[in-house]
Amino acid sequence: MDLMYELRKDPILGRWVIVAKTSRTSLSNYLVDDEKPDYHLTCSFCRGKESDTPPEIMAIRAPGSKPNSPDWFTRVIPESIPVLSIEGELNRQGIGMYDKINGIGASEIIIESPEHHITSGDMDIEQATRVLLTYKERILDLENDPRLRYILISKNYGRAAGALYSHPYSHLIASPVIPQRIIQELEGAKQYFSLKERCVFCDIIREEERTAARIVFENKNFVAFCPFASAFPFEVWIMPRRHSCAFQEADKADLEDFGLAIINVLNKLKKLFKDPPYNLILHTAPNRMSRRDHWQTINEDFHWHAEIVPRLGGFTGFEWGTGFYILNTSPEEGAKYLKEV
Amino acid sequence: MDLMYELRKDPILGRWVIVAKTSRTSLSNYLVDDEKPDYHLTCSFCRGKESDTPPEIMAIRAPGSKPNSPDWFTRVIPESIPVLSIEGELNRQGIGMYDKINGIGASEIIIESPEHHITSGDMDIEQATRVLLTYKERILDLENDPRLRYILISKNYGRAAGALYSHPYSHLIASPVIPQRIIQELEGAKQYFSLKERCVFCDIIREEERTAARIVFENKNFVAFCPFASAFPFEVWIMPRRHSCAFQEADKADLEDFGLAIINVLNKLKKLFKDPPYNLILHTAPNRMSRRDHWQTINEDFHWHAEIVPRLGGFTGFEWGTGFYILNTSPEEGAKYLKEV
Repeated sequence: MDLMYELRKDPILGRWVIVAKTSRTSLSNYLVDDEKPDYHLTCSFCRGKESDTPPEIMAIRAPGSKPNSPDWFTRVIPESIPVLSIEGELNRQGIGMYDKINGIGASEIIIESPEHHITSGDMDIEQATRVLLTYKERILDLENDPRLRYILISKNYGRAAGALYSHPYSHLIASPVIPQRIIQELEGAKQYFSLKERCVFCDIIREEERTAARIVFENKNFVAFCPFASAFPFEVWIMPRRHSCAFQEADKADLEDFGLAIINVLNKLKKLFKDPPYNLILHTAPNRMSRRDHWQTINEDFHWHAEIVPRLGGFTGFEWGTGFYILNTSPEEGAKYLKEV
Repeated sequence: MDLMYELRKDPILGRWVIVAKTSRTSLSNYLVDDEKPDYHLTCSFCRGKESDTPPEIMAIRAPGSKPNSPDWFTRVIPESIPVLSIEGELNRQGIGMYDKINGIGASEIIIESPEHHITSGDMDIEQATRVLLTYKERILDLENDPRLRYILISKNYGRAAGALYSHPYSHLIASPVIPQRIIQELEGAKQYFSLKERCVFCDIIREEERTAARIVFENKNFVAFCPFASAFPFEVWIMPRRHSCAFQEADKADLEDFGLAIINVLNKLKKLFKDPPYNLILHTAPNRMSRRDHWQTINEDFHWHAEIVPRLGGFTGFEWGTGFYILNTSPEEGAKYLKEV
């Protein structure tokens, strides 16, 4: 009997997912009409509204322009109600049988453009590279703080993906602990390396190029593909060909090619669906302090990358409650659609 | 400086979450108006429509009534398009560097009542106990299949929680692999036991009773509480006081008290919010075969329970992409609301 679904294992996380061999759903079921409220007139992230935000932490500006003046390309400000705060001593504490830490860290908003209506997929490559350069500078700065263990940069686009603002922005959280999903990834990569003495991500890139079945976009320095054991339909990972554990080690040429890959993938998703909500998450190595504590072999065994998940609906609570995902469109089919669009 | 948030560690999963010490959001922000389409007239799960479904796998029926006749209390049918199928040989296979298994397993629908409009929170205790007895019988039956490693029973209520039908039902998946979130829980519990020689769940019950700050409901055999490091606001765990690794070992008295706890918690959520969508997931030990392979100490170190997560919106992709959750209402505040309603 020919079964309609198969189980696939993610080689990094060790997570199994259930994948439909032939799409069990038509593309139109995924078409998302996400609410995108336009607060253009009241938006304090737009050019000219600089005094409506807290003073900027950094910005990429026209030569000679002053901080908090209107002549900027990208701008970083602290979150107005910060989830984690930079001031204070780190305080680890037991409470009964449980453990807690006070909310030390940083939460910042990276404003990606002075223009309200531009989307990441529409950006020109110069501006996209500036955004990535802003990410890099913030990570390099925050990495100096010995209390912080991990810097997480993500982008929520559209209400359904958790976006709080309609202006193009990314979110940065610098945390005194490493998020669990990242630890699983680091552990998985470390185990693979100790078994094979090869980076699992480098192996994945070679395997994806060999079969070519899931590749969505390529350029000199980057490959974008739908992962073999995707948790969500039309999920895309973007990986640098050159082995490097940390995004912040990327040079100008890397950032340009990475920017091109992001623009390209987001444009494909936008064309294929109705400007869908999505999340983009940067997966980089833990901060230098974490590497001194525990992750000493990270240079060899981890490989930075970005993961893009369009929020096309249709996943059940069962899935995120158990980590057991059901995929009604296989990554091969998803990649085919994305490649051809 | 008094920080507004703190980081808390889940003692089982080792996952850190960010919790607001004082609620950062008003209750009305959580009020969900979920679409609940009424397909009453065309519903094939209602009494009298038995011939519209595949033949039943089992049912709890009035004495003397025949299979697939209308006189039933609960009824189990195979899913019409099964995600995993019971027929065939288990076939594990490498494909390039990746691993896969064909889609062997079972996916079943447990129809919880012949009445279309009843919700789990409105059920009388007799019917709720029958539903739990149905869960138990299905697990005991499927556990005999040596190809299957884990049986996952969950309930998605409301469209936003992933429900496919408006008739009250639960979903059963029997899988040849153990879902990753369950493995993490099993590993966490095992590590705790090897360190302390005590069950972490038993310790949690004692700690929750000692502080009483997060308890929502109690009866002779069960405790319901908002966990210390909840990932979602108003999340509730229901645990048996008596240590036991497997739900299917519960006796009639256990099932009745468990049923009462479920009804009570769901009713509280319904009163506090506008009949919110939710997921209920049963966390039990892996099947006997898995216990022979690997989880030999499960009797000592694991403790079955149920987790209820109301889907109150407002979580970002960043959260499920990283496993780093931000909670704007603390479990203590959540429990207080639920207790008092």
